[in-house]
Amino acid sequence: MGGEPARIVTGTGNTLTQRFAATRALTEALAAPLSEADATIQSMEDASPAKWHLAHTTWFWETFLLRDHLPGYRLWNDDWPFLFNSYYEAEGARIARARRGMLSRPTVSEIVEWRGAVTDAMAHLIDDPALTPLIELGIAHEQQHQELLLTDIKHALFQNPLGPPMWDGRDAATTSAASAETAWHSFPGGIAMIGHDGRGFAFDNEGPRHRVLIEPFALADRLVTNGEWQAFIADGGYRNAALWLSDGWAWVNAEGIDAPLYWQGDQHFTHCGWQDRDPAAPVTHISYYEADAYATWAGLRLPTEFEWEAIARGQHTGAELAHDPAAGNQLDRAVPPLPRGGTDLFGDCWQFTRSGYLPYPRFAPVTGAVGEYNGKFMSGQVVLRGASCATVRGHSRASYRNFFYPHQRWQFTGLRLAKDI
Amino acid sequence: MGGEPARIVTGTGNTLTQRFAATRALTEALAAPLSEADATIQSMEDASPAKWHLAHTTWFWETFLLRDHLPGYRLWNDDWPFLFNSYYEAEGARIARARRGMLSRPTVSEIVEWRGAVTDAMAHLIDDPALTPLIELGIAHEQQHQELLLTDIKHALFQNPLGPPMWDGRDAATTSAASAETAWHSFPGGIAMIGHDGRGFAFDNEGPRHRVLIEPFALADRLVTNGEWQAFIADGGYRNAALWLSDGWAWVNAEGIDAPLYWQGDQHFTHCGWQDRDPAAPVTHISYYEADAYATWAGLRLPTEFEWEAIARGQHTGAELAHDPAAGNQLDRAVPPLPRGGTDLFGDCWQFTRSGYLPYPRFAPVTGAVGEYNGKFMSGQVVLRGASCATVRGHSRASYRNFFYPHQRWQFTGLRLAKDI
Amino acid sequence: MGGEPARIVTGTGNTLTQRFAATRALTEALAAPLSEADATIQSMEDASPAKWHLAHTTWFWETFLLRDHLPGYRLWNDDWPFLFNSYYEAEGARIARARRGMLSRPTVSEIVEWRGAVTDAMAHLIDDPALTPLIELGIAHEQQHQELLLTDIKHALFQNPLGPPMWDGRDAATTSAASAETAWHSFPGGIAMIGHDGRGFAFDNEGPRHRVLIEPFALADRLVTNGEWQAFIADGGYRNAALWLSDGWAWVNAEGIDAPLYWQGDQHFTHCGWQDRDPAAPVTHISYYEADAYATWAGLRLPTEFEWEAIARGQHTGAELAHDPAAGNQLDRAVPPLPRGGTDLFGDCWQFTRSGYLPYPRFAPVTGAVGEYNGKFMSGQVVLRGASCATVRGHSRASYRNFFYPHQRWQFTGLRLAKDI
Amino acid sequence: MGGEPARIVTGTGNTLTQRFAATRALTEALAAPLSEADATIQSMEDASPAKWHLAHTTWFWETFLLRDHLPGYRLWNDDWPFLFNSYYEAEGARIARARRGMLSRPTVSEIVEWRGAVTDAMAHLIDDPALTPLIELGIAHEQQHQELLLTDIKHALFQNPLGPPMWDGRDAATTSAASAETAWHSFPGGIAMIGHDGRGFAFDNEGPRHRVLIEPFALADRLVTNGEWQAFIADGGYRNAALWLSDGWAWVNAEGIDAPLYWQGDQHFTHCGWQDRDPAAPVTHISYYEADAYATWAGLRLPTEFEWEAIARGQHTGAELAHDPAAGNQLDRAVPPLPRGGTDLFGDCWQFTRSGYLPYPRFAPVTGAVGEYNGKFMSGQVVLRGASCATVRGHSRASYRNFFYPHQRWQFTGLRLAKDI
Repeated sequence: MGGEPARIVTGTGNTLTQRFAATRALTEALAAPLSEADATIQSMEDASPAKWHLAHTTWFWETFLLRDHLPGYRLWNDDWPFLFNSYYEAEGARIARARRGMLSRPTVSEIVEWRGAVTDAMAHLIDDPALTPLIELGIAHEQQHQELLLTDIKHALFQNPLGPPMWDGRDAATTSAASAETAWHSFPGGIAMIGHDGRGFAFDNEGPRHRVLIEPFALADRLVTNGEWQAFIADGGYRNAALWLSDGWAWVNAEGIDAPLYWQGDQHFTHCGWQDRDPAAPVTHISYYEADAYATWAGLRLPTEFEWEAIARGQHTGAELAHDPAAGNQLDRAVPPLPRGGTDLFGDCWQFTRSGYLPYPRFAPVTGAVGEYNGKFMSGQVVLRGASCATVRGHSRASYRNFFYPHQRWQFTGLRLAKDI
Repeated sequence: MGGEPARIVTGTGNTLTQRFAATRALTEALAAPLSEADATIQSMEDASPAKWHLAHTTWFWETFLLRDHLPGYRLWNDDWPFLFNSYYEAEGARIARARRGMLSRPTVSEIVEWRGAVTDAMAHLIDDPALTPLIELGIAHEQQHQELLLTDIKHALFQNPLGPPMWDGRDAATTSAASAETAWHSFPGGIAMIGHDGRGFAFDNEGPRHRVLIEPFALADRLVTNGEWQAFIADGGYRNAALWLSDGWAWVNAEGIDAPLYWQGDQHFTHCGWQDRDPAAPVTHISYYEADAYATWAGLRLPTEFEWEAIARGQHTGAELAHDPAAGNQLDRAVPPLPRGGTDLFGDCWQFTRSGYLPYPRFAPVTGAVGEYNGKFMSGQVVLRGASCATVRGHSRASYRNFFYPHQRWQFTGLRLAKDI
Repeated sequence: MGGEPARIVTGTGNTLTQRFAATRALTEALAAPLSEADATIQSMEDASPAKWHLAHTTWFWETFLLRDHLPGYRLWNDDWPFLFNSYYEAEGARIARARRGMLSRPTVSEIVEWRGAVTDAMAHLIDDPALTPLIELGIAHEQQHQELLLTDIKHALFQNPLGPPMWDGRDAATTSAASAETAWHSFPGGIAMIGHDGRGFAFDNEGPRHRVLIEPFALADRLVTNGEWQAFIADGGYRNAALWLSDGWAWVNAEGIDAPLYWQGDQHFTHCGWQDRDPAAPVTHISYYEADAYATWAGLRLPTEFEWEAIARGQHTGAELAHDPAAGNQLDRAVPPLPRGGTDLFGDCWQFTRSGYLPYPRFAPVTGAVGEYNGKFMSGQVVLRGASCATVRGHSRASYRNFFYPHQRWQFTGLRLAKDI
Repeated sequence: MGGEPARIVTGTGNTLTQRFAATRALTEALAAPLSEADATIQSMEDASPAKWHLAHTTWFWETFLLRDHLPGYRLWNDDWPFLFNSYYEAEGARIARARRGMLSRPTVSEIVEWRGAVTDAMAHLIDDPALTPLIELGIAHEQQHQELLLTDIKHALFQNPLGPPMWDGRDAATTSAASAETAWHSFPGGIAMIGHDGRGFAFDNEGPRHRVLIEPFALADRLVTNGEWQAFIADGGYRNAALWLSDGWAWVNAEGIDAPLYWQGDQHFTHCGWQDRDPAAPVTHISYYEADAYATWAGLRLPTEFEWEAIARGQHTGAELAHDPAAGNQLDRAVPPLPRGGTDLFGDCWQFTRSGYLPYPRFAPVTGAVGEYNGKFMSGQVVLRGASCATVRGHSRASYRNFFYPHQRWQFTGLRLAKDI
């Protein structure tokens, strides 16, 4: 019960072939510590079984690459698309999302066998330059599911009163230093270029690049910590209606919310089981409602996604903010993905913005089934920026737009405060 | 069953005293055709009984003006604030929203008696310049509830298989002309000033006035019509997943939606009962999901709220767009508020934008209970602009931000298309 | 708010014509104190508006007597059967039960006008001996709705935080004497004849009369009182799982039940508003689950319906137990129907038995729509015997079988204990 | 995917030790074909994972025998009672029933290891005569869970669109003969002795033995078949409200029921996957509502549980009806438990009676936690008699009372008709 964290090193090469292979291998490595049963259960409709992630990412390659572009390719199993299509209406009917946890068959080993066959078959297509954009999309898609696999299995194991760990060992060492004073990145105001600049891969929702007028503001140089959140609780934050959005207050009362997800006493549940909580580490697993209430309590506010990106790009200097490989996200080096007291914009947790998830000017989804990728989710959700400890290295960028509903909190979500200046 | 529409003329004077009196009188006039039972029933949690609107608007004056500012004022009935507070957490506990329809007592006449007493007592405060902003807020608040009273009672009467009319008579004459070709208001792009300019009353959410960078676009000079919507239906619009936002498609299927609210065959339900639908009149009672799907079907899009306001202000010319009192909204002249084929930006129906309802830069709610007015609703909703046939004259302006959840459609909601240029 | 209780005296004559007229008049008298709004609201799906009871009982006469048996009779309004059919599948579609509270139209006076016309038209049929059984059924049906009208309006008024009374005045004088020691009616065992003996009217579910073998037992000569129930509460009765049926314990926890319906502190809600509770009066408004838990707590049990009837008939002596018109049920003499400390088997409250509501041997529903009257409800419900303070005089008999689901408690339900001997 | 059916032969010995060992072994044999994932998933709140059945039956022995009666016994794992207590309130808190499917840990092999240890430890108690009744109860309890394990895993595998079989091979040979004409067991009427006579083990709810007066009736000598059910469907049985109980009609419409569970076209889902349906085999997997509607359609009725037992006992002759080991239930000889066209009272399917599940006269639960075994479920359920193809041999008797809610149908439930004579 609880194995070694994955020991795959993905960053060693950067050809498309190497990255494809490393991505496929990492998914399997992440699932390796799980039993057949761990990999099958589904804790809620929002989450999917680990097995399903293994299969769905393979369905994606088989469907949009092999089936559509490799002449003579025959589907591994004609019944499986019904099981492993996620939400692509153009690809036909599929099992209800809430019933994914009923798939005790096929087994993990059957799916891994399929994975191998699909990975192998991709060798015929990997060097076709015309397919490079679609292959880049497939890699990015599988990286997203690597993060979901980790957050979903964490939620599943948390349902078990025994609190089983996925990985042995303890958390990475965490700082015992008190939280530093917050310093501020300031932005003098002006027109910022927002959205992906076309160099390297990006999802369609990150563009088109466009101008946004931003007023002077400052963004905290660090995340809100567990210790600070504890002070919010101690001050009655969860019982003071004046701090909350109306929908948030209804949610707090209907669900009986009084702390972040996974908190209990001085501990929190992690991939390594129940652990003492580090007051200096960033708070995670909060909803948008909680993030907003905290900001109100602190007399500050959440940044817009444009403000966040303006700082992340360091755009007034023209320099792209580096994502330091020695810090932040450690997923692909297989250190247990627990939050540490980082100050980086990327790698500890996704950061809520106050921006609704909406299309950029002149945005248009691509045609065909993959066009369902992002655009159709543009209602009711909020944008998060950055990356989390469960995001694979290379999957984060300044223009990346993550999005969730305001009540969801099973991702590694936290907050970075902003203020007007 | 069904009386004369209200014959109150509100626009004759423009002193605060006159406007206060006219507003109070209009609310009562709107409720006059209703029986005690009509005024009591509640058709859904979103809607409130007409009686409740009569009372709640009075509670607002009594609480925030008389109680707080008139020395020695005694509440009319100590138990009533529990019944008629809407959502002001700072004002204490209150009856659950979904139970407002259980209030067979107090009676309409008891509430009207209370209304009279509160209206009279306001005479002591109406001339106090320090209270003018609060009184303006109270008038605007009551005007909002006048519109809600009309949309809520329409929904309530619609529940009745008999389809009872609220008003006798037929619709206002409607154009039999075919829909005109759409012409386009174009905007060349640039920085627009968005938000209320401080002249006259506005809600807090309309400010602060600030700069927004807008790319070149064009806005249709007229609303989408019933006839055009019928073509969308005939083309399978409600059965084609590719046109819909993901949440919208789920809503269509869960609720079995296949037409705007109130449509049946060639008729629709109105305040005058079931009437033939005019193909040239603007479509109303659609959800955001439907508006977005239609725009996708048409190869166009919804405007942002900033685009809408930029046109509405005519700000590139510097001239405020006039709200022609001879056209558009007729509520306060008591013509049955049925849509006609207007081309005005104001007065036929609220127009969905693709903007989430979010705070403007440097927005801060006012302190105290009235600060709960707008800011706490800034999550999960979309902005609508313009005004409807049920909006009282004088209650519409270019900076006005209305907001509803994406599935709601019991308001007079329609759409005006936009496109990039 | 709150009028005089009805002053109709129904018992003065006993011809069918007299009884029909008195029944029709009593329904109207019971509704007389209600405002149009009181008579329209519906507090839950189980309950119906008072107005609906006025109309439904009229629909019954119009449908099964006038329409089916009076040549040339034209329906008063062709649309109304859709509104006022309760559950007769053979009579076609009807408004959803939960939407009965949406019927602000027709008005009470329109319904009363219809009532008068139907009552008058019945003069053509009242003397037809072939119709006597159907007319007796119609009278009994309307008497049932008289009781429902009272229990439903009580529940509706209870929703109002103001606690409005339906009737002025206070409760009938209640005994201040301590509860008497319980004495026991004993039955030596043997074969009892159960079911209606064919003399006078009975519902189909009261027959066929048949033999039941009963073991020796005893039945308490009085009902459990409020004071005794208070002792059950004080002893932790609502918190001790061991006392409860499994479904009952789930219900207690899901609904947060800790006292009978309508109890608050030392008061309870009545048709005369909030009143002090008399410890010596029978407890009412309890569910089957509560009755069973109490009996377990007391070391006793509920009777079967056969045991109850065996005592009620006094059949071992051959004498029918009298229903003393000077005591018990006072509804038709219009005294506010509040429980008093009676010891009669009839007239204070319905008494739970442990018998499921099932068909007697050789039971068969009558053919036609009225055959839906009782038989189709024979699953999931329990039998109650006796009568309540809200039951009209003449509507109770030893063979009468009332039935409700085990969680329901808005009727005047109480309990009388039994034991083996 | 799909293994050999269990090859355990349980009937070879009849000492308590032998029966205990055989029972323990059979449970494990039944679960043997299941993967770790098969054994973990839970398809609905009514059903439990196979793993949970393995563990819960062990918890029963550990708790009520080893813990309570073996000096010095230490629980195998102090955390597991929280996981594997089913509903015994006296044994403390436990995981919510609907969350049993979240237990990916402990693993099946960990539970089997625990099973072995508990089975071994029982050797210290098995010969203690004072414990024999409790051990008999434990065996009967585990036999019940053997049946549930089979019906629950059938339901779980059915959720999978692939329709995976649990067992290889085809159904047992089924008769191709047309259904025989129904013959009738008749009973002349009189007083029957109902309930267990004290010889051998019985559950508490089967007693006390008592007299019941039964009128003359006849019971069909065979079960209703698939072919007859198909005729009911073809005749519009599921669309004719007149045939249904009111609750049943609501259920049919709310759930969209139009056939027995597991039917699709001419096939039905079995433990051997999808198979052609034999028209001559007994219909199974129907609800009480369906059974009652069918009987009404057929102009007959369901028997009472007393009638059924009177025939099963053959008590008017004094001879106990034999349960032929060469026919009927084959579970313990590990033939796939599919219905065949048997005519026995036991062994094909449980047979609905029209009797509510209620206590017999003078019934009292035993004291202590095991007293929660049966009595607390005596509300809202109906009695089924007989046994099914999934019932272990030796677990059926004429006095056995099974019980389910009227809408449940995942058990092997069928019907045998009755009529008055």
